[in-house]
Amino acid sequence: MDYTSHHLEKAVQEIHGLPGIGEKTALRLALHLLRTEEGRVRALAESLVNLKTKVKRCENCGNLSDTAVCHICQQPNRQHDLVCVVEDIRDVMAIEHTGQYRGIYHVLGGVISPMDGIGPGDLNVARLEEKAAQGELSEVILALRGDMEGDTTSFYLYKRLKDHPVKLSTLARGIAVGDQLEYTDEVTLGQSIARRVPYQG
Amino acid sequence: MDYTSHHLEKAVQEIHGLPGIGEKTALRLALHLLRTEEGRVRALAESLVNLKTKVKRCENCGNLSDTAVCHICQQPNRQHDLVCVVEDIRDVMAIEHTGQYRGIYHVLGGVISPMDGIGPGDLNVARLEEKAAQGELSEVILALRGDMEGDTTSFYLYKRLKDHPVKLSTLARGIAVGDQLEYTDEVTLGQSIARRVPYQG
Repeated sequence: MDYTSHHLEKAVQEIHGLPGIGEKTALRLALHLLRTEEGRVRALAESLVNLKTKVKRCENCGNLSDTAVCHICQQPNRQHDLVCVVEDIRDVMAIEHTGQYRGIYHVLGGVISPMDGIGPGDLNVARLEEKAAQGELSEVILALRGDMEGDTTSFYLYKRLKDHPVKLSTLARGIAVGDQLEYTDEVTLGQSIARRVPYQG
Repeated sequence: MDYTSHHLEKAVQEIHGLPGIGEKTALRLALHLLRTEEGRVRALAESLVNLKTKVKRCENCGNLSDTAVCHICQQPNRQHDLVCVVEDIRDVMAIEHTGQYRGIYHVLGGVISPMDGIGPGDLNVARLEEKAAQGELSEVILALRGDMEGDTTSFYLYKRLKDHPVKLSTLARGIAVGDQLEYTDEVTLGQSIARRVPYQG
């Protein structure tokens, strides 16, 4: 497209570089920023630089944090020998939001995905294995996605951890609360029959 | 949501403040930026500040420009007494892209829309009327949207310009090239019959 302003064109290109944002949307956002007061635009720009320069990974669990050890790992009333292994911070937030979990987390930073060029060496596993080997953990919950990449990663972690003194568990799979059977995919429905559990009235 | 990093939360809030970007999308974009190299993130942030601080409106036509007069108004081989009135820079780019127009533009910066609190006083009209009153223009093409706000704005401009020595025209309306009649909306189809033109074989 033929922009009459180089600065506008540059901003549109930079915004367009973000995933899932096309050029028309980038232009719409740029025109919105032009109508926004300067202080707000500077605050946005500053927050992006701070995000990149000040956010670290927690030394203990690998989660995103502003401090060397994240505030979840710092909480004394959590069960520190119970570790839930997740892919990234979004899963931590989802599980925290349930209010059901009082252990700590271990954030891998991804799952094994040859298609995306992510191998076992790219995941944050060493610290988890070290803790397991030293007998610091009672249970590790593998809480990864229900697809092939998630399953592959779970199996890889099982191989790394199975000889250490720690119990391994994984999330229950089956029909979701509120699901209608006729609309449940057949693999999930089949597994929920195969893995049926005693009825607790 | 319960973020483990204040800087991450702040960045997500700022991105979420952009129109059409929900909190989940904002988080996805923030996590993408965390994986992006620092130079790219700084370039994005800088481009947003430059956009806000360095882009001006052309003194002649009101279009966005890095210079006092935009490069379209500076082109000597354009017909400067032929002015196409449009809403914003996106319309300028769309018309330029056709390669059919050799006049200059006049960018209003919006259309009259009481619902959005935009009245005639918010539009860039004074310079256009001044040019028309001084006999600098041969023709003004009203190229505004085909909806009520566009029609209202066209009528307002007609009232402001009709007593000046300038010809007023508007875009042809009718069925689009390639349209099938059965899928054309009935108002457009009705108008295209009422405004039928001589067949040019």
